[in-house]
Amino acid sequence: MNSYPIDILNQYCPSRQVLDLLGDKWTLLTLNAIGRGINRHNALLREIGGISQKMLSQTLRELERNGIVTRHVYPVVPPRVEYEMTPLGASLNEPVMALGKWAQENYALVQQAREKYDLESANPN
Amino acid sequence: MNSYPIDILNQYCPSRQVLDLLGDKWTLLTLNAIGRGINRHNALLREIGGISQKMLSQTLRELERNGIVTRHVYPVVPPRVEYEMTPLGASLNEPVMALGKWAQENYALVQQAREKYDLESANPN
Repeated sequence: MNSYPIDILNQYCPSRQVLDLLGDKWTLLTLNAIGRGINRHNALLREIGGISQKMLSQTLRELERNGIVTRHVYPVVPPRVEYEMTPLGASLNEPVMALGKWAQENYALVQQAREKYDLESANPN
Repeated sequence: MNSYPIDILNQYCPSRQVLDLLGDKWTLLTLNAIGRGINRHNALLREIGGISQKMLSQTLRELERNGIVTRHVYPVVPPRVEYEMTPLGASLNEPVMALGKWAQENYALVQQAREKYDLESANPN
């Protein structure tokens, strides 16, 4: 029984742990890639620019542990490892893809704002 | 001119920087709080459980720098500092709130999956 409302802003609320998992760039990028149908471990490593083997494995393991993706190992030589969303993970697809889409559609406005801010900070008044 | 498609998975794409900004738990929590109408600096510090003064200031400065929030200082004693979404920031509200909502609605399923995984890891076969 919870005697407090479920709220991510409350650091002791179990939903905060979930937000902490999602509020991570490699998690969001990995989910975005799997959401696009990039399923093989090797393809994820190649397509997610800048991710290390270790960071990818760690991110995928946390996603599997938290019920968001499943891992399949195909007994071929060399072994083929594929990931897919669980039904729970699939329900996360929409907000995750929406965040990525927002970044892709608005990066130029963000860049403009940043340049303006940095210019004004360098030249106050 | 871009000679490559805009894609957050490309580490050299300017949209990746935006995703890096958003893929941060304190950024998501701060945006979630402002999206709920928590606008004063002091109220944000109180309502976002676990955030430090320094982390809040740093997060808000980055959001201001990137054109997502604006900062208003009211010349009262003591000075009152308030934040609000820019129109650009307002367009980010929906995916950010959706992620928070997902965490709040699905934390129990995530927790179950995690407990099952940890139990199986501790007792293989």
